[in-house]
Amino acid sequence: MKTTTPTVPTPDDAAVWHEGRLYLADQRILPERAEFLSYDRADAVADAIRAMVVRGAPAIGVAAAYGVVLAGRSAFASAGSDWKTAIEADLERLAASRPTAVNLFWAIRRMRALIEQLDTTDPTERLLREAIAIHDEDRAANRRLGDLGAELIEGPTEVITHCNAGAAATGGYGTALGVVRSAYAAGKITRVYADETRPWMQGSRLTAWELMHDGIPVTLQADGAAASLMATGGVGWVIVGSDRIAANGDVANKIGTYGLAVMAKYHGIKFMVAAPTSTIDMEVASGAEIPIEERDPEELLSCGGRRLAPEGCVARNPVFDVTPASLVDAIVTEKGVVLDPTPEKMCELMR
Amino acid sequence: MKTTTPTVPTPDDAAVWHEGRLYLADQRILPERAEFLSYDRADAVADAIRAMVVRGAPAIGVAAAYGVVLAGRSAFASAGSDWKTAIEADLERLAASRPTAVNLFWAIRRMRALIEQLDTTDPTERLLREAIAIHDEDRAANRRLGDLGAELIEGPTEVITHCNAGAAATGGYGTALGVVRSAYAAGKITRVYADETRPWMQGSRLTAWELMHDGIPVTLQADGAAASLMATGGVGWVIVGSDRIAANGDVANKIGTYGLAVMAKYHGIKFMVAAPTSTIDMEVASGAEIPIEERDPEELLSCGGRRLAPEGCVARNPVFDVTPASLVDAIVTEKGVVLDPTPEKMCELMR
Repeated sequence: MKTTTPTVPTPDDAAVWHEGRLYLADQRILPERAEFLSYDRADAVADAIRAMVVRGAPAIGVAAAYGVVLAGRSAFASAGSDWKTAIEADLERLAASRPTAVNLFWAIRRMRALIEQLDTTDPTERLLREAIAIHDEDRAANRRLGDLGAELIEGPTEVITHCNAGAAATGGYGTALGVVRSAYAAGKITRVYADETRPWMQGSRLTAWELMHDGIPVTLQADGAAASLMATGGVGWVIVGSDRIAANGDVANKIGTYGLAVMAKYHGIKFMVAAPTSTIDMEVASGAEIPIEERDPEELLSCGGRRLAPEGCVARNPVFDVTPASLVDAIVTEKGVVLDPTPEKMCELMR
Repeated sequence: MKTTTPTVPTPDDAAVWHEGRLYLADQRILPERAEFLSYDRADAVADAIRAMVVRGAPAIGVAAAYGVVLAGRSAFASAGSDWKTAIEADLERLAASRPTAVNLFWAIRRMRALIEQLDTTDPTERLLREAIAIHDEDRAANRRLGDLGAELIEGPTEVITHCNAGAAATGGYGTALGVVRSAYAAGKITRVYADETRPWMQGSRLTAWELMHDGIPVTLQADGAAASLMATGGVGWVIVGSDRIAANGDVANKIGTYGLAVMAKYHGIKFMVAAPTSTIDMEVASGAEIPIEERDPEELLSCGGRRLAPEGCVARNPVFDVTPASLVDAIVTEKGVVLDPTPEKMCELMR
């Protein structure tokens, strides 16, 4: 809990609860400007998730949990003892904000389970305690899985990461960048190559910012430059996060991840997926069942406010892809590591 | 030859000679603005090549040939019968403009061969005839290799292209897009997916513009989205151009090409390189000997004038990579097609 009003976000401040308001670091403008937006209504939090003020599967889950707190407070204010009926619309709004990251649904389901146990009195404090627990547990999970992932790396080596699976994408510390932080501290990583990650440039804007903030050597590259870097022989691991992992170990993550995994296999480079178990969805049998969000083609047609493509140009903008388990060497969670994932091993992990 | 002063460039107008001046379509601002810049000095042409006013290996060769015409005219104006000595500095300036595309050196060498045959009188007309021949032959080569490449495609299928190997990159018609034009006319291609091609966005800005100009269905995608598209099963070929092909069939082309080739192999998709024989450099044994240009990291750190990465961020910006011959199914030239290239087959082609 911040004790003063949040003003300038650090990478660890994706979501901050302070004096009855949720503060989200506006990730659309980082690192050019480091600013918080503050929220006291759940529908505005849902809009913020959709607009990618906050992004990254675990951070979306944390933000949604706090959104449920705001929803509960509003519902009790307007409907009193009938708040459990009144809260429904907001829960649905939050769940409809983005389709791929399962942590969103996981967090809402966990908050719902608590709601079912509550009585008709003001739920705000109890909901807040649960949201804070979700937040704290995510941060702790990342510390734990960061250390477990680091143990797999025989350094010193260079690594490639894609998108931002860092503190800014989570409750804190990061998943892929949690592994990077732990491995760097252990002297196992000499340099991180960050794919810039079109179209949203999470690599340029967030991963470079986070790693420079921590003094970890980082080199930015175009997404298309990863293969030629792999061919140099210095890269030992590709380390990424995930938005949803299916029961067979297939991994949905930022668009471009699947191609990286194919290239890593071709070059004999290991491929690690770092994610808390809240990212694992045992209800989808394989990646084919994971809904893949298509965002506005406009994200491709212009950049930095400048028009790139001709007027009327058609574009496809799937923002996630699915990497089959067969290309994944390790799924690293806070509950343990799954090497060469299979449905059986995933089931064992989640038991 | 344009009979009126060039004003609004079409894709076929990368380089236009008109009334003693070279006009280059400014490819840095297309398609937002379609404007020519005009040149009457070779050093300014060298600067234009370096700054990517004109780009694409064959178009660079054509522009350099016209640059030699301007150099010869200036040399004769300043040094009279001693023009062959005076022209040297400009020839060297042109050759030093960019390192990877061999067509630049090929065109200058061909102009040099003519220079050696000339006497001490004004060389301008003879040099111009040779430059026009280079230009015309490139356009004719592209028509021919376009048809040869199209013959390889069993349609109807979708294809992926990377960067811009179109009319705008050549003397006209295009190499990869020459194949696309011929194959589309033959009903073999249903849609072209154009990688946007960071950092310079040749796909968004030039390939989309060219194909829309010709009414060929084109869909733009982020470079990282190619693998997930391949997984859909609709893509039969990846078709790209080249900046230099080594004697063993290794192919230097725009950064990202190598990764695409790896992904194509993984998905059982065919990989075609379309280029005139002026792109083949029998003096380099393999791709390892091809100099790969590294451009200003600033091209990655901002986009459309907006700062993306933090101040002081390190970036690598190799703008070409090398695809080994083992990943290439066909090299298509105006002299014929080489399937599964080997040093022997390349030697046979170039005999």
